[in-house]
Amino acid sequence: MGEYSTLAAVDLGSNSFRLQVARVVGDQLYPLDSLREPVRLAAGLTHDKRLDEETQARALACLRRFGERLRGLPPHAVRAVGTNTLRVAKNASQFLKAAEQALGFPIEVVAGREEARLIYLGVAHALPASEDKRLVIDIGGGSTEFIIGRRRQALKLESLYMGCVSWSLRFFPDGKITKGALKEAELAARTELMSIAGEFCAGHWQTAYGSSGTIRAIGDLLAGHGGNAEITPEGLDWLRSALLKAGDTRKLDLPALRPDRAPVLPGGFAILSAAVSELGIERLRPATGALREGVLYDLLGRFHHQDMRDVTVNQFMQRYHVDASQARRVAKLAVALASELLAGAACDREAEIKLVEWAAKLHEVGISVAHSGYHKHSAYILRYADMPGFSKREQERLSCLVLGHRGSLKKMQALLASEVDLAETLALRLAALVHRSRRPLELPPIHVRRVKGGFQVALSGNWLAQNPLTAHALEDESQQWRQLGLNFEVQWQEEAILHAAS
Amino acid sequence: MGEYSTLAAVDLGSNSFRLQVARVVGDQLYPLDSLREPVRLAAGLTHDKRLDEETQARALACLRRFGERLRGLPPHAVRAVGTNTLRVAKNASQFLKAAEQALGFPIEVVAGREEARLIYLGVAHALPASEDKRLVIDIGGGSTEFIIGRRRQALKLESLYMGCVSWSLRFFPDGKITKGALKEAELAARTELMSIAGEFCAGHWQTAYGSSGTIRAIGDLLAGHGGNAEITPEGLDWLRSALLKAGDTRKLDLPALRPDRAPVLPGGFAILSAAVSELGIERLRPATGALREGVLYDLLGRFHHQDMRDVTVNQFMQRYHVDASQARRVAKLAVALASELLAGAACDREAEIKLVEWAAKLHEVGISVAHSGYHKHSAYILRYADMPGFSKREQERLSCLVLGHRGSLKKMQALLASEVDLAETLALRLAALVHRSRRPLELPPIHVRRVKGGFQVALSGNWLAQNPLTAHALEDESQQWRQLGLNFEVQWQEEAILHAAS
Repeated sequence: MGEYSTLAAVDLGSNSFRLQVARVVGDQLYPLDSLREPVRLAAGLTHDKRLDEETQARALACLRRFGERLRGLPPHAVRAVGTNTLRVAKNASQFLKAAEQALGFPIEVVAGREEARLIYLGVAHALPASEDKRLVIDIGGGSTEFIIGRRRQALKLESLYMGCVSWSLRFFPDGKITKGALKEAELAARTELMSIAGEFCAGHWQTAYGSSGTIRAIGDLLAGHGGNAEITPEGLDWLRSALLKAGDTRKLDLPALRPDRAPVLPGGFAILSAAVSELGIERLRPATGALREGVLYDLLGRFHHQDMRDVTVNQFMQRYHVDASQARRVAKLAVALASELLAGAACDREAEIKLVEWAAKLHEVGISVAHSGYHKHSAYILRYADMPGFSKREQERLSCLVLGHRGSLKKMQALLASEVDLAETLALRLAALVHRSRRPLELPPIHVRRVKGGFQVALSGNWLAQNPLTAHALEDESQQWRQLGLNFEVQWQEEAILHAAS
Repeated sequence: MGEYSTLAAVDLGSNSFRLQVARVVGDQLYPLDSLREPVRLAAGLTHDKRLDEETQARALACLRRFGERLRGLPPHAVRAVGTNTLRVAKNASQFLKAAEQALGFPIEVVAGREEARLIYLGVAHALPASEDKRLVIDIGGGSTEFIIGRRRQALKLESLYMGCVSWSLRFFPDGKITKGALKEAELAARTELMSIAGEFCAGHWQTAYGSSGTIRAIGDLLAGHGGNAEITPEGLDWLRSALLKAGDTRKLDLPALRPDRAPVLPGGFAILSAAVSELGIERLRPATGALREGVLYDLLGRFHHQDMRDVTVNQFMQRYHVDASQARRVAKLAVALASELLAGAACDREAEIKLVEWAAKLHEVGISVAHSGYHKHSAYILRYADMPGFSKREQERLSCLVLGHRGSLKKMQALLASEVDLAETLALRLAALVHRSRRPLELPPIHVRRVKGGFQVALSGNWLAQNPLTAHALEDESQQWRQLGLNFEVQWQEEAILHAAS
């Protein structure tokens, strides 16, 4: 850990972008520095769900400033995450390229439930110790997350597609706050909430917390009005009257309100009020701690060998009834082959080898759907499932690896333009091929290397002679690679030579 | 049952087409008549996996003859199934239209494992009673099925993509039988078998049976050579020598061999010999009973209220952790609405309503993958999963219904060209919408009817006033239908009137 005594998280939210830098002391984090800019990314979404140029420029300028603050930190010490707007924007991938360049670090887009998990992690670290079941609500710019958890463990996660920016734009486009518009906004939010109310309503938790800028701002407003910073149905009634009395976001006479919060207040208020009434919340306590803290604690966990992704992989192996011995056999060989192939490659080798290991452990999850074409079903599940700890990009890469682990390579042509993906696909294919009999094998060393125009695989000639089916399958395999214009040469070697090369 | 005292099955196999007519006595079937024509459908597959014109013509002529024999039988008494060649042919759906017309009855294409399940059902009915675990092998024209079962219950099912026609064409294209070609064919078959050998090899069963034309023909050859009709490794060695000695399928000097079997014998032999050696089979007994008998017994079960499809739906609800109370609530309402909408429609109303019920029971299976976009995941699972008892077409229809049960209807435009699909989609959508709160509801009657240009839904005005979220959701729903150019009118009515209309 010595080298990562400072960690940083960047939250590319739909309302604000935030940067949090923290010092690591044991398993605790102490905030060093934080920045926030109201980029209002969600407001830059055009009608056909594309980020407009102006908003992109504003976002990139902000990321350049953040990048300046982060300069010098090692890659593993920084984690930047994007949320709802980047989940839905059709030109997100093009924007992300520019954004990563501006920031100087990779950016991961996380799914709604993963966002909810990270928020809870951040909030829970800031709450007093308790055995209570807690409800946490976080109203973001483009989505709202609901979590029930106990201690630091999230038990139920939901993400609804409504946020303070999107709701304000939809129901209060010109800043006017009318009774009709407010009613419509609350009704629409309550309709969204209907499907989760059964699982998240009062009775399923003991204490309710709210963790977003929207909720803290409303808490401050109510406290200014003589409350004790807790949000109650009565407090919200008062605020509703105040909003309607002002009639316009530019005329709000609320001293505790920061000016940049005003434009998104009515949308945020409608969502909060709908949640309080649909879930039967009598008191909601504003809480500090949020996505960025959750991201930091999750990152810290990875260094302490409590990588959430390992937990998820193991859970998936169980949930999808994966044949664990077979998965481990394939993983062991795939990791060994990938290590050889990636030696000297320009990549984060440790992270890449971990990815190959996960792909190998999960390559058969799709058998739970159907045996025929199971690699396609595995790929589908890994692409779309909620996988706590994984970013969308990581899930996509797992999905591609697993799709390519058998069958034709023609479908992989685009992917295999990258040397790293090429190496990992080969490692997984070879490992699955050698272990096709699904039995424990006494395996002599196998070596593989990249040569000009293709690959060389060296195996024990004796062993191949005793295992003619594998020899035959390796011949078929070479046909597959030829379709991609690559040679795949199998060398029958003396076992002693192979051992010497190990 | 009185009206269905005669049942018939048609098997559109990759080698032969077969027709079996049987008389029902209690829960037994007595064969009345059977026809077989060596259509050799698999041989008509072109390089790019299309059925050529000549083979299509041959197949249609055969089906016209079968259709003549079936004339007068009621629709429910006949079941026609297609197997591997129709699973893989790219122009299968176009061919099937013509085929259904020629036959005069619908044709279902079944998945490999469903074929295996039906084969076992047919074979098991013809075997002596026993508590043994049995291995059954069926070498078809385009695929080979492996089943382990006890009594009439299949326990393990596999279908491999190799058959006597496809293997003969691939390794013995000109009818020449050389040592090299035979070795290649056996090696390729053994490579296919590798992945299932662990689960199907000796030790996992007590008795082994072989049920296809290929296996019975080889049994007859060995019996003619002085064996006792059991297939043994030694018997196969003798046959291998005989094949090599002849050197050509046209020069086989085997009196017990029917001439139309000769061209596909070497491919079938290679598969059988590979299976016997890879699975460690010492004695394989030829068995009567096959796919067509399985189809008949499965059909008989449906009349006796032992519909395999109900069993599968219940199993899926468990396997995918479906919220059963919610599923049943939605199913109940969906069935009621579909019954109203389909009154007078030109369709098999009972079968259609059953389909709606299954779709409702399974519409949330996709939540097991991820909550967001779960209807897409449900649709994926229902399209690709092994669902015993269901044809591929039934799975596709379930998949479409479930995909359309919420969200935009734009994606459904093509599907909704059919009045029946339109009605069923509406029934499922409305049922899911009304039950969105996932709580038990005291529901007043709801009526729905097709009117010119759209639909009218009549609900209690009082109830709607008390359930403003549902009223709001119904307004949103009408927008969805408008996208398809259909009106969706919600009528607020007196409850007494609705009850009177029930």
